[in-house]
Amino acid sequence: MIETLSEVRSHGGTQGVYRHASSATTTDMVFSAFVPDHSPGTRLPVLWYLSGLTCTHANVTEKGEYRAACAAAGMIFVAPDTSPRGEEVPDDPDGLWDFGQGAGFYVDATEAPWDRQFNMWSYLADELPALVGEHFPADLARQSITGHSMGGHGALTLALGLPGRFRSVSAFSPIVAPSAVPWGRKALKHYLGEDRATWRRHDAVAAIEDGARVDEILVDIGDADPFLDKELKPELLEAACADAGIALTLRRQAGYDHSYYFISSFMADHVAWHAERLAR
Amino acid sequence: MIETLSEVRSHGGTQGVYRHASSATTTDMVFSAFVPDHSPGTRLPVLWYLSGLTCTHANVTEKGEYRAACAAAGMIFVAPDTSPRGEEVPDDPDGLWDFGQGAGFYVDATEAPWDRQFNMWSYLADELPALVGEHFPADLARQSITGHSMGGHGALTLALGLPGRFRSVSAFSPIVAPSAVPWGRKALKHYLGEDRATWRRHDAVAAIEDGARVDEILVDIGDADPFLDKELKPELLEAACADAGIALTLRRQAGYDHSYYFISSFMADHVAWHAERLAR
Repeated sequence: MIETLSEVRSHGGTQGVYRHASSATTTDMVFSAFVPDHSPGTRLPVLWYLSGLTCTHANVTEKGEYRAACAAAGMIFVAPDTSPRGEEVPDDPDGLWDFGQGAGFYVDATEAPWDRQFNMWSYLADELPALVGEHFPADLARQSITGHSMGGHGALTLALGLPGRFRSVSAFSPIVAPSAVPWGRKALKHYLGEDRATWRRHDAVAAIEDGARVDEILVDIGDADPFLDKELKPELLEAACADAGIALTLRRQAGYDHSYYFISSFMADHVAWHAERLAR
Repeated sequence: MIETLSEVRSHGGTQGVYRHASSATTTDMVFSAFVPDHSPGTRLPVLWYLSGLTCTHANVTEKGEYRAACAAAGMIFVAPDTSPRGEEVPDDPDGLWDFGQGAGFYVDATEAPWDRQFNMWSYLADELPALVGEHFPADLARQSITGHSMGGHGALTLALGLPGRFRSVSAFSPIVAPSAVPWGRKALKHYLGEDRATWRRHDAVAAIEDGARVDEILVDIGDADPFLDKELKPELLEAACADAGIALTLRRQAGYDHSYYFISSFMADHVAWHAERLAR
């Protein structure tokens, strides 16, 4: 059961926003989906976009500039929320924006009080794809994934952790090694506890070190991104991919920052890159 | 003197937001400008975008999806605010959103208390172009104009009222005959007074009836626009252009509404249409 919150025509397709009761999070969850016009009976490939800290589905839906490219490629674009939300959902005890609601970090929490609702891994690995396959003309044999910042982390770890699920994975300004940076350490400690062994499959660099593999990765990152050195550390992904023989295309974009002004500049490139791989 | 509020790199250019003290409005005014990368010394054509009711520069800047097309065309894109703003600026006495701040209707008000600050015609016809020519690499011999809803009205009336200023004019979902519709009648009565003769140059259809001319006009309008029949009435522009011999291309876009999901769908078309005419 999904409830349609809005559907509007845009770029030769339908941009919708939907709500459903999630069993993974025990809360209502909202996501957006863009479905290009298509022949009756056709099923379209799906590009998942995971958003960054503080974002909902709305940021990329309004500012991501993906619709023209997805319409041209005949590709469904799904943008989930970044965490469970609501008055009954726990949040950062200090009221900060980098943890709790809006900052689910795409894990299944094992520690109280987070473990009841913060199950974004199961939500994205199982529940939402099934829902999308049921309610939209989606070909679940052809899925790719991308994301921004915390969502880039989510895209990388989901692709590495679910072999064969995604035909391709890319990221904008991803957190590549959450165990090694402040945002990630705070989140993983609270959600997963102090035993860092449990963190490794939720850390793209550690997962690759432990043997997880994808064929190739496309990453764009702005060299004027204020989080580059402290939170993102793309050089750690470069080293891990070099050691593992993963074909990483890492593009350091001169002058670009961490915002949707950056993401939207390269969104059409990513959509086309995924479309090419989804068509193989 | 302009103050830079922000400048970020986007789509191969610089997206900035700027503030300056306006002599036309006696207030501070904010506008955005996108300047594509260009060779030193080059001066670029300018596309003006006038926004609709309630909007600031920010709506189109975030959601308009114009930057890729403007970068490809080598065109500066300027988005002014829709009225003076501030605590000292009068506003709708009933607190409504269709008049006062955010709803300047691109006229010079003659009636108190609006006449002191609501001088958006002079601001856009004289003050802001001079400022843009001074502070940006703009070729003021090559300007075009477009806009949305109330801003489509502004684009049409400025183009009709300033012969030779703009190489081309287009609009998204414009108010084409404010004298004939509720939004327009409310605004023009308060800003210009009861003498409807003074309204006519601020009503595109009336101005054309009175002899104002442009060569051609491009209009996109959604046939699911909720304001179509009550506020927009494109058939009045069709009739006036037919009588006057103005080449109007009016495209009724099936299923599209009044939002930026509509505008962004056809923005690249409009940018390319203007670019072609600016290159002649």
